[in-house]
Amino acid sequence: MKIDMTRYLPILTWGRDYNRSALSNDLVAALIVTIMLIPQSLAYALLAGLPPEAGLYASIVPIILYAVFGTSRALAVGPVAVVSLMTAAALSNIVEQGTMGYALAALSLAGLSGIILLTMGLFRLGFVANFLSHPVIAGFITASGIIIAASQLKHILGIDAHGHNLLEVVISLTQHLSEINWITAIIGILGTGFLFWVRKGLKPLLQRFGLSNGLTGVLVKTGPVAVVVATTVAVWAFGLADKGIKIVGEVPQSLPPFTLPSFSTELLGQLLLPAFLISIIGFVESISVAQTLAAKKRQRIDPNQELIGLGAANIGASLTGGFPVTGGFSRSVVNFDAGAETPAAGIFTAVGLAIAALTLTPLIFFLPKATLAATIIVAVLSLVDFSILKRSWNYSKADFSAVLATIVVTLTMGVEVGVSAGVGLSVLLHLYKSSKPHIAEVGQVPGTEHYRNILRHDVITTPQIVTLRVDESLYFANARYLEDKIHNRVAGDKKIRHVILLCSAINEIDLSALESLEAINERLNEMNVKLHLSEVKGPVMDRLEREHFLSQLSGQVFLSQFEAYEALKVLPNA
Amino acid sequence: MKIDMTRYLPILTWGRDYNRSALSNDLVAALIVTIMLIPQSLAYALLAGLPPEAGLYASIVPIILYAVFGTSRALAVGPVAVVSLMTAAALSNIVEQGTMGYALAALSLAGLSGIILLTMGLFRLGFVANFLSHPVIAGFITASGIIIAASQLKHILGIDAHGHNLLEVVISLTQHLSEINWITAIIGILGTGFLFWVRKGLKPLLQRFGLSNGLTGVLVKTGPVAVVVATTVAVWAFGLADKGIKIVGEVPQSLPPFTLPSFSTELLGQLLLPAFLISIIGFVESISVAQTLAAKKRQRIDPNQELIGLGAANIGASLTGGFPVTGGFSRSVVNFDAGAETPAAGIFTAVGLAIAALTLTPLIFFLPKATLAATIIVAVLSLVDFSILKRSWNYSKADFSAVLATIVVTLTMGVEVGVSAGVGLSVLLHLYKSSKPHIAEVGQVPGTEHYRNILRHDVITTPQIVTLRVDESLYFANARYLEDKIHNRVAGDKKIRHVILLCSAINEIDLSALESLEAINERLNEMNVKLHLSEVKGPVMDRLEREHFLSQLSGQVFLSQFEAYEALKVLPNA
Repeated sequence: MKIDMTRYLPILTWGRDYNRSALSNDLVAALIVTIMLIPQSLAYALLAGLPPEAGLYASIVPIILYAVFGTSRALAVGPVAVVSLMTAAALSNIVEQGTMGYALAALSLAGLSGIILLTMGLFRLGFVANFLSHPVIAGFITASGIIIAASQLKHILGIDAHGHNLLEVVISLTQHLSEINWITAIIGILGTGFLFWVRKGLKPLLQRFGLSNGLTGVLVKTGPVAVVVATTVAVWAFGLADKGIKIVGEVPQSLPPFTLPSFSTELLGQLLLPAFLISIIGFVESISVAQTLAAKKRQRIDPNQELIGLGAANIGASLTGGFPVTGGFSRSVVNFDAGAETPAAGIFTAVGLAIAALTLTPLIFFLPKATLAATIIVAVLSLVDFSILKRSWNYSKADFSAVLATIVVTLTMGVEVGVSAGVGLSVLLHLYKSSKPHIAEVGQVPGTEHYRNILRHDVITTPQIVTLRVDESLYFANARYLEDKIHNRVAGDKKIRHVILLCSAINEIDLSALESLEAINERLNEMNVKLHLSEVKGPVMDRLEREHFLSQLSGQVFLSQFEAYEALKVLPNA
Repeated sequence: MKIDMTRYLPILTWGRDYNRSALSNDLVAALIVTIMLIPQSLAYALLAGLPPEAGLYASIVPIILYAVFGTSRALAVGPVAVVSLMTAAALSNIVEQGTMGYALAALSLAGLSGIILLTMGLFRLGFVANFLSHPVIAGFITASGIIIAASQLKHILGIDAHGHNLLEVVISLTQHLSEINWITAIIGILGTGFLFWVRKGLKPLLQRFGLSNGLTGVLVKTGPVAVVVATTVAVWAFGLADKGIKIVGEVPQSLPPFTLPSFSTELLGQLLLPAFLISIIGFVESISVAQTLAAKKRQRIDPNQELIGLGAANIGASLTGGFPVTGGFSRSVVNFDAGAETPAAGIFTAVGLAIAALTLTPLIFFLPKATLAATIIVAVLSLVDFSILKRSWNYSKADFSAVLATIVVTLTMGVEVGVSAGVGLSVLLHLYKSSKPHIAEVGQVPGTEHYRNILRHDVITTPQIVTLRVDESLYFANARYLEDKIHNRVAGDKKIRHVILLCSAINEIDLSALESLEAINERLNEMNVKLHLSEVKGPVMDRLEREHFLSQLSGQVFLSQFEAYEALKVLPNA
């Protein structure tokens, strides 16, 4: 068997046609993204409970590996807010933050997550992510954003606090509120305020000066760099570090180190579920960004190859001092808007970050943690969006319940329980709905061969024929319900001689349902009523032909409901 | 609000019309069932790891409470094989068999199970049992029967052994095989052989002597009583108890005692999952028997009231020295065949058993445990039936996988994990199937208004129109799949101007799917292709009208596919 290498190594496709124009576009994009990523990487390391350099390391090798294996041309891979929060939540349950064991566990989490993603990709299991419904994701991102913002308040106020859900964080903040460090608070609040203004106020201002939409967008995204420079200089110049303000401190000048994650059985057991959830959430976030950007240039994203790309990136993160990564929304959009044409832009970004890790780290010695917290808060609050609650309330109470449960459980019990509750409830509600299917009695729309619900349309019916359209596949969860429904409809009406099951909406009949149909056929036969089927779909019919049911059926199977009705209405009424 | 008491107290209905003919029929049935139940109750107590009298107690008050609250006229409630095995499996994990704590935990398990059943009944949650598919139940019963039979071999051979799955039992038996007690083994093997002969050989013999089918059935079921009497007398007469044969020993002469279950939080936490599984399995077993027997007399069973009846019975068991009970197959069939007309037969049976508990217990002092084991083995081996494997293999590989997983996991890991694995796998396979729905491209069947798959039928199509019939409801798990499918079909074919989604099989569109439809509409629009819907069902249309989608739709919504095709095929091809 010849393996198409370009499928597993997309770099072979875009690399072949690489030219000077793409090179210059990619270089410009890489420069802008690098500047934006320096503060963002440090901030997300802080959020994940890790030393700042881990954020830089997690952005270097992973971005290169994704460039080799990934299918998106614009996706930028690295630490992102929600996954960093989930990392902190997973690790804090196991080891104490700030210890070597914590950093080691972060490597293991990234490695495990990488293996999970890679395995899912190789076995083409990308569909698993589909079980995260859009409303559940929206609710989860909103709730996570709130928790992240709340958890960063401690850095803004210069106090100690902890917790991985909103309740814990708020209680802990309240308890330590008296220890507030006012200098930290002033820097934190000013920084946050400035960044909000950059988002809301600066963009219109720049546009009024005639700058293009794309360029203002990029400029606005580099706002954090300005705050970083200003507050670092202020702390250094006024000696604020001696006044209790917490700073980043010494960061090693080094390329990403070679690291080996721990794979002790106990640790793996504890990390397996969090790693799975991080993989799925990271994959869903990443693929959504990738598909949005690809659609704008009519490019194709292969979900299973994306799993491989993200898996490789996470394994890379675990081997080079990082932590779990995925394709980030804001960094990818900046990359795209700045004109990146190929994943080479990602490789150049990695080079830029490597240079920064080697040379610039002494410059951030005096960078206040409050500044990083401010950049996190402003970034995540843009994710918070409660409109999904209103929309789902209007459209479907089942979707609404799933969103509400996701938000409430995430806020009160943390990210892992929250997303599991959302997925679990969506699946249960879906099963519940299909366990009590809509069953319509239908009649002929006059002058057509078309049959519709007798309660909604003016249709023609005949007393001795009842046609029931079951609006659901028949399977174990609703098999008994159908038995009851048909029994109840026929038992009271002595005129009925024929029951036609209009099967146009029945996409599957499993063995439980087949046994129920046999029981229905037998019971109707005892009441001297014949059971017919119409419009049975090809795949369903194929399956029925493997069993005895069709030979036991008291009535016939008709290709169309019209044929069935025409044939049966002329039969003698006996 | 006036509450219809007869709904919650079915005894008010049948009690009102009670007459002398019913009385004499019920008395005869009760006598036969009582004789049959004495050895069976003792045996199932042994299986559950409890003293023999617990089996009698579990058959007295529960049967009366079911008679008051249950809707089946013939169901006999008490200890049954599978539930007794599940009881032993649940309790042995927590307390040591033979201790007071074990009996107390059995009361708690019954009480908790009763509360679960009662709650499910009051909240009308009977549908939960539907998630146990027929094949999974069949596989579970078969595997349980094998485990039970194997676990009883220790009594037959007079050795010590333990274990709650086949592996453990077989290993334990092998280890102790050298300790075999030959007298016990002879009695056990002869007893088992005799009982098998009663089932297979005696029935044809009696029928040859002209006895009616019903009477032979009843006589055969009392076979165990003969073995009990014979072996008890033998042990007493030949002083076999001194030769190492294990006997039932002293059983108190007493009515069921008043007992209070322990409800310590720790115990309840450990028992909650087993109690839930026991409730569901017990309910499914009971309702299947009840419905089979009711159908023969055209009576109705109300599943939710059955939950209340079984809940009351289990609470009764927990308050009177019993253990979890449910409606049993063999005892109910004997009751029915012996002519029971109303639940009063159950009340008379309870009286009979109470008299037995008060007076007959000294007579079973010398009853060998091997005899009870023999009755259990013969009873449960009739439950073992592997034909479901073959049937499901032929019909559907998904059903087959669920059965196989249930059997294998139950045998190797025990009943609780086994049934959970079966249910979990069925649900996952169902979701998986619906996440990759069958999507057929359809065309007009010549001379009709009917549209079928172009790959299966000779149909008429038009190059600029593609009609896709999605054979599944659209929901989160398959929303993205539809996006990909439509994109792939349209992207390569420049002639296409209209895509019609034939929605006859779409029973629901949830919010995730709606968002996907919006994305599809937008993308098709960019390619200058219009999206139309046809045959949208009423409930789905109602829902769509609450959102903006219909106003954004580039095409139209048609009542029937025929109308859609007629309208679009005459449009200019632009």
